[in-house]
Amino acid sequence: MAAHPVSPLAPATYPELPAIPGVRFATAEAGIKYKNRTDVLLCTFEPGTVVAGVLTRSKCPSAAVDWCREHLAGGAARALLVNSGNANAFTGRKGREAVALSAQIVSDALGVPEETIFLASTGVIGEPLPAEKFAGVTDALVSRQAEGPWMDAAKAIMTTDTFPKLASATVEFDGVEVCISGIAKGSGMIAPDMATMLSFVFTDAPIAPELLQRLLQPAIDMSFNAVTVDSDTSTSDTCLVFATGKAPIAPITTAADPRAQVFADALFDVLHALAIHVVRDGEGATKMVSVNVEGATDDASANRIARSIANSPLVKTAIAGEDANWGRVVMAVGKSGEPADRDLLSIRFGDLVVAEAGERAAGYDEAATSAYMKGEDLSITVDIGLGQGRATVYTCDLTHGYISINGSYRS
Amino acid sequence: MAAHPVSPLAPATYPELPAIPGVRFATAEAGIKYKNRTDVLLCTFEPGTVVAGVLTRSKCPSAAVDWCREHLAGGAARALLVNSGNANAFTGRKGREAVALSAQIVSDALGVPEETIFLASTGVIGEPLPAEKFAGVTDALVSRQAEGPWMDAAKAIMTTDTFPKLASATVEFDGVEVCISGIAKGSGMIAPDMATMLSFVFTDAPIAPELLQRLLQPAIDMSFNAVTVDSDTSTSDTCLVFATGKAPIAPITTAADPRAQVFADALFDVLHALAIHVVRDGEGATKMVSVNVEGATDDASANRIARSIANSPLVKTAIAGEDANWGRVVMAVGKSGEPADRDLLSIRFGDLVVAEAGERAAGYDEAATSAYMKGEDLSITVDIGLGQGRATVYTCDLTHGYISINGSYRS
Repeated sequence: MAAHPVSPLAPATYPELPAIPGVRFATAEAGIKYKNRTDVLLCTFEPGTVVAGVLTRSKCPSAAVDWCREHLAGGAARALLVNSGNANAFTGRKGREAVALSAQIVSDALGVPEETIFLASTGVIGEPLPAEKFAGVTDALVSRQAEGPWMDAAKAIMTTDTFPKLASATVEFDGVEVCISGIAKGSGMIAPDMATMLSFVFTDAPIAPELLQRLLQPAIDMSFNAVTVDSDTSTSDTCLVFATGKAPIAPITTAADPRAQVFADALFDVLHALAIHVVRDGEGATKMVSVNVEGATDDASANRIARSIANSPLVKTAIAGEDANWGRVVMAVGKSGEPADRDLLSIRFGDLVVAEAGERAAGYDEAATSAYMKGEDLSITVDIGLGQGRATVYTCDLTHGYISINGSYRS
Repeated sequence: MAAHPVSPLAPATYPELPAIPGVRFATAEAGIKYKNRTDVLLCTFEPGTVVAGVLTRSKCPSAAVDWCREHLAGGAARALLVNSGNANAFTGRKGREAVALSAQIVSDALGVPEETIFLASTGVIGEPLPAEKFAGVTDALVSRQAEGPWMDAAKAIMTTDTFPKLASATVEFDGVEVCISGIAKGSGMIAPDMATMLSFVFTDAPIAPELLQRLLQPAIDMSFNAVTVDSDTSTSDTCLVFATGKAPIAPITTAADPRAQVFADALFDVLHALAIHVVRDGEGATKMVSVNVEGATDDASANRIARSIANSPLVKTAIAGEDANWGRVVMAVGKSGEPADRDLLSIRFGDLVVAEAGERAAGYDEAATSAYMKGEDLSITVDIGLGQGRATVYTCDLTHGYISINGSYRS
């Protein structure tokens, strides 16, 4: 009944992320909330580093989100400070003061302008963030700046996460290897839809900030915006991409440059891998599910139907119970409000056709379907039968573990 | 951890519903799915009975819903056949045949036109309904028609319900008492929003069917459409109101008749009481919560915000854990996408102000708030601070019981 100490869907091994020229970092125990674990990450970037980002569209964003939104326009980044244990969200004037104090502490320690410092906070909502605690660890953080290990950075930003989340990709331009590495955190309050949970991506590519921003949004839409754990959108969703420009190649400045698409594809690979890690660490998750909708009137409609299925508590509890309950899938299609004709629907679990033309498939095989549902990685595909629209949304099951985690933890 | 055999929020006593002149009924065990319990209800109405109804707006409605939608236009009703154990939803051609056969069996037994027979089914989705089983019990159902007891009718339509749901109201016109009595079923897959779960209401008022329909919709909007158990909208939501016209008063034919509003208010009282019963029997529920939003830009916006809070799994698990986690309420306001200004929000749990002007209230009292959360009937009130829009949505907590019920039962 209890939640697993480590998600059963955690990866068997973790990648060794390479150093990114121009990026250094360190972690520390500031004692914001947790004891005996790191809870603060300070990354520093060499001059010339640019930044792009996507932030939550929640109408009640955290103070750090407001700060980032204001300073992303500048496009220049020299530092990133992230803490776990306190989201500094819904903290009013105190929240703005905590953000200002955080930026000032880092600015003083590094001698860089406050507007080049980016901030993110994750943890409990509504508690004032004791930003003065950062001052006590800043000297240590600055003196220990190093190019690795990335695992330490990934661990320092965890909250209810049961495993650290890292991903990396490399592309070669003119014989030069360019790296893109990222970390993320997130386990509950995950339905980014509009932005993402906390994720930080680093590259040595020399790329114009406007172009980076332009490449980022579609990659986010197909990765973090395509996952949901519990339909609850965080106040703190933040994805920032820092590009140091240290790779010795000609700068990539326009979308017309063929390297831009190659870079965008690699960026997507990193974001997608991180997003999948977030679902696989969904609070209480024991099954990973990709919900595919095809044949909808258009892609947007397919996405709304897929999301309706992926967010349905009845679908998610059925998956937890290893029950191929396609009736609940039909229900979720119906409640989405999107164009659908009951008598054209067909539904597959994996490759097994369970329903066709609006009723149970003639060849429905209960034993085979039940056996399939015992797997850890499942796919549900619904063909609406009306058009060419398609979408995929990734989710997990809804288990006793989710209730245990969230019925007792003020996060 | 397990679900309660009877909801802890069940009423202590049940009302004795009066006989409604012109309405008789009986129940039977047709063996559709359940063993050793009644699963079919046949109500018969004297000539002159009119009917109004509201049906699910699911794009994948059950075959019985389609049948009712087609025949509501006629406005005349002579019988109602309801079964539990099988929803006859997503059953394709077989579903339409089962509906036709059901109507034919009842029509033959009673000698009334098929178009005056109303049908409703609730239970598993996707299984063909063995309507031929009705034939085996019809003679008994017809011979046992009686004016009571209503408790039997309420029990025959239950599925995962843990208690029967009944409500009644009387109004006096010209010294004559007019009765309105209703029954309902519903426990999971409850987010009617557009219509309702199964609910049947009976009155002896002489009222024009067009007027009855016109009075019904706003009453539904404030009752069944204001409750949510799990955000999942059923394929079978049906509310039908039958008026026999047997009360010896002048017919009520127009909304201008002052009796129309008196009747509408009493009808609302019955529907609201039934809707609250449905929430109090929400699958796994241990707390009843009314979510009140005020100060929104308009009522529709307030409703969407209230629904976002009431459907949030994080809010609902916090309530289950007796945690006054108003940070999650802020999150749910933010994710609704409705106009809101974080720094104007205030939040109350019961009468206790927990947050004001976008941060924890100065007088926040953790002990008092924790004590309040131990109660069974809770209210959460959010003042958006922007306008005059208000709405209330009723919901329950999300517990291990919900997971247990839905992770193992193919409904």
